[in-house]
Amino acid sequence: MTISMLEGAKAVPGFRLSGVHCGLKGEGQLDLGLIVAEKSGLLAARFTQNQVVAAPVQLSRAHGAGERCRAVVVNSGNANACTGPAGMAAAEATAQQVASQLSCPAYEIQVASTGVIGRPLDAEALLGGLPAAFSQLNDGNEGLMAFAQAIMTTDQGPKIQSATVGSYTVTVVGKGAGMIAPNLATMLAFAITDAPLPKLLLADLWDRVVRKSFNAIVVDGDTSTNDTALLLCPDGGEALSENTLAEIQRALLACCRSVAQQMVADGEGARCLVEIQVSGAATKDQADDAARAVATSLLCKTAFHGADPNWGRILAAAGRSRAQFDPDKARLHLTAEGESILLFEAGMPVAADWAHCSALMEKRRYGFVLDLNNGDKGRRLWTCDLGHNYVTLNSEYTT
Amino acid sequence: MTISMLEGAKAVPGFRLSGVHCGLKGEGQLDLGLIVAEKSGLLAARFTQNQVVAAPVQLSRAHGAGERCRAVVVNSGNANACTGPAGMAAAEATAQQVASQLSCPAYEIQVASTGVIGRPLDAEALLGGLPAAFSQLNDGNEGLMAFAQAIMTTDQGPKIQSATVGSYTVTVVGKGAGMIAPNLATMLAFAITDAPLPKLLLADLWDRVVRKSFNAIVVDGDTSTNDTALLLCPDGGEALSENTLAEIQRALLACCRSVAQQMVADGEGARCLVEIQVSGAATKDQADDAARAVATSLLCKTAFHGADPNWGRILAAAGRSRAQFDPDKARLHLTAEGESILLFEAGMPVAADWAHCSALMEKRRYGFVLDLNNGDKGRRLWTCDLGHNYVTLNSEYTT
Repeated sequence: MTISMLEGAKAVPGFRLSGVHCGLKGEGQLDLGLIVAEKSGLLAARFTQNQVVAAPVQLSRAHGAGERCRAVVVNSGNANACTGPAGMAAAEATAQQVASQLSCPAYEIQVASTGVIGRPLDAEALLGGLPAAFSQLNDGNEGLMAFAQAIMTTDQGPKIQSATVGSYTVTVVGKGAGMIAPNLATMLAFAITDAPLPKLLLADLWDRVVRKSFNAIVVDGDTSTNDTALLLCPDGGEALSENTLAEIQRALLACCRSVAQQMVADGEGARCLVEIQVSGAATKDQADDAARAVATSLLCKTAFHGADPNWGRILAAAGRSRAQFDPDKARLHLTAEGESILLFEAGMPVAADWAHCSALMEKRRYGFVLDLNNGDKGRRLWTCDLGHNYVTLNSEYTT
Repeated sequence: MTISMLEGAKAVPGFRLSGVHCGLKGEGQLDLGLIVAEKSGLLAARFTQNQVVAAPVQLSRAHGAGERCRAVVVNSGNANACTGPAGMAAAEATAQQVASQLSCPAYEIQVASTGVIGRPLDAEALLGGLPAAFSQLNDGNEGLMAFAQAIMTTDQGPKIQSATVGSYTVTVVGKGAGMIAPNLATMLAFAITDAPLPKLLLADLWDRVVRKSFNAIVVDGDTSTNDTALLLCPDGGEALSENTLAEIQRALLACCRSVAQQMVADGEGARCLVEIQVSGAATKDQADDAARAVATSLLCKTAFHGADPNWGRILAAAGRSRAQFDPDKARLHLTAEGESILLFEAGMPVAADWAHCSALMEKRRYGFVLDLNNGDKGRRLWTCDLGHNYVTLNSEYTT
């Protein structure tokens, strides 16, 4: 069986979705999304590692311990974070109402919120919108697209990627990682598949996929109070062959990476998507640390914005990370459009064609490969440039 | 004895300084500075912790092991970093020529460079400028000011602070922490005093002062290949009383803090100086980590720029640091002009006068106090806002 990455979105058999307006966002804007599985299925969940955690995340984390899920309810327009006991009550009432409707235990309901933090959630509006969300559940692309729209905040468009492996479908829907006025926004991602993934492997599999996709992107280095990434699949069914399982895992990673990269490309005011690949690190953690230092460096991100092949900033950012290496042995390449141009080795810049390098960096997509030459571990991250639009979006708001 | 912080700069008896043009910067601009002590004295030195280290730092670190110093030679216009064996030869030739002139061992010479990295240093120009630097050595303010000018790169003005304690003088000269096109710039700081500080305490004393001043400022979170902070004092002389020693230590910290804050205020395109104070942390490291997370957060720095009292971004930045705390027990205050306004407690924002908070944040100087309520350790850092000027300065250069 081979993986087919699809151009368009594809609904997943066994799941119905909807997106409606309940009143948390302005007139007519979709702000309430619902995913309902035909039958109670399996769940793997990853949440923000921030210590400041929104009520829905606290609730979903507790529910997620059961590793089962029948439905996911998501609102945009309000993050329900830093909202005290009333916020937790609102999240619980939401889960309760959805569970009643489906006659399932409340712990099978996942709740996610995104939007302004520190403002009371209008629970009445949310609960009032649930009947419409249920009545509009749809097993085709219409439901999928409405859901993708309903979870958006500052996103410029919905983020979806589907793939098929034989007769199975994998679809991932997400919303942007950028944080924005008036407060924090959030990264949300929901992966659904009709492939009956093995229960015992599910959590590890999802951990690995998340590490290489949603945890491999950087917009501004901040993590939100509400970040949530869920994987839903049926419980039971014909066991997958080892080969099919491997293919589905690859398809899942490819879809998650695609959605993650859509988030970066739609980062606040971003002009370009930049891949930072560190190789030759002594340990995985050191590789991650060096790549993250470069991907989050203001100096690197402004150089990316200015299409400046500024090897010095990249070396210096890696140099202040916890990754150990000898600058005299490190090598740095710029990669774009199939070209790979050596910029730095033996402790010195090489005589590269800098004007050509700069021209390549005018593209929407390029990367840097930094070989630390101190081991065999690597890490690949995706980041974006930092330009005036980011500053405008993030500073020109007054509480 | 009491400390007098002086309005103007004050030369330090026993030290002669100069600043001349040797040709590394454009026509007529001072680019070579020299400090010469009357007699070989004591030295405490702190250098960048980046693994990518300029030749002069490598040489000065080796020389500094001797803990003695007769002279410091500093050039601006070229960082002599990532310049290979030729760069090290240039740094050594510089130290050698100064040592010959003073008939002292080469290890008593400290060398520092700041400016463009990755371009060969014009050693001939530098060595050719040394005779003029020696002939213009001056024990008054003229020499001090010329030196302060000669070490500048993108600084908008010289950075000096002097204080007296009884008959003793402490003077600290520095240059900016911001990094800028065409590559990295550097933080350099030179503290000189005629007080005979005790040799056995010198290194520890300087470590503590540097931690609370130059290591307590953040412009963009990147550290340079060339950062250097030196303390010079006479070797021997009448022993200081315990009380006088304590006062001189305080004066030294106050001067270093002043120069450090001048660096932040002159950070690239900075509008305001923001003090981030974390209290109630479980450990010193956790306090530092939480304060640094806030001080380097793009979201916080853009909110500072926009005068947005965005408590959510500050809480979330601390929340993703390694500092452990319960958000429900943390408290956040905005401090400005003698006022202290509670913004957040019990897991929720309070009903503050947000317009007034925003008005206070329009000032050139204000701060935030975040009490994690999980211990008794604290940390105070100074940072600046991130605005359009930063982006312009750092992105609109093409190699």
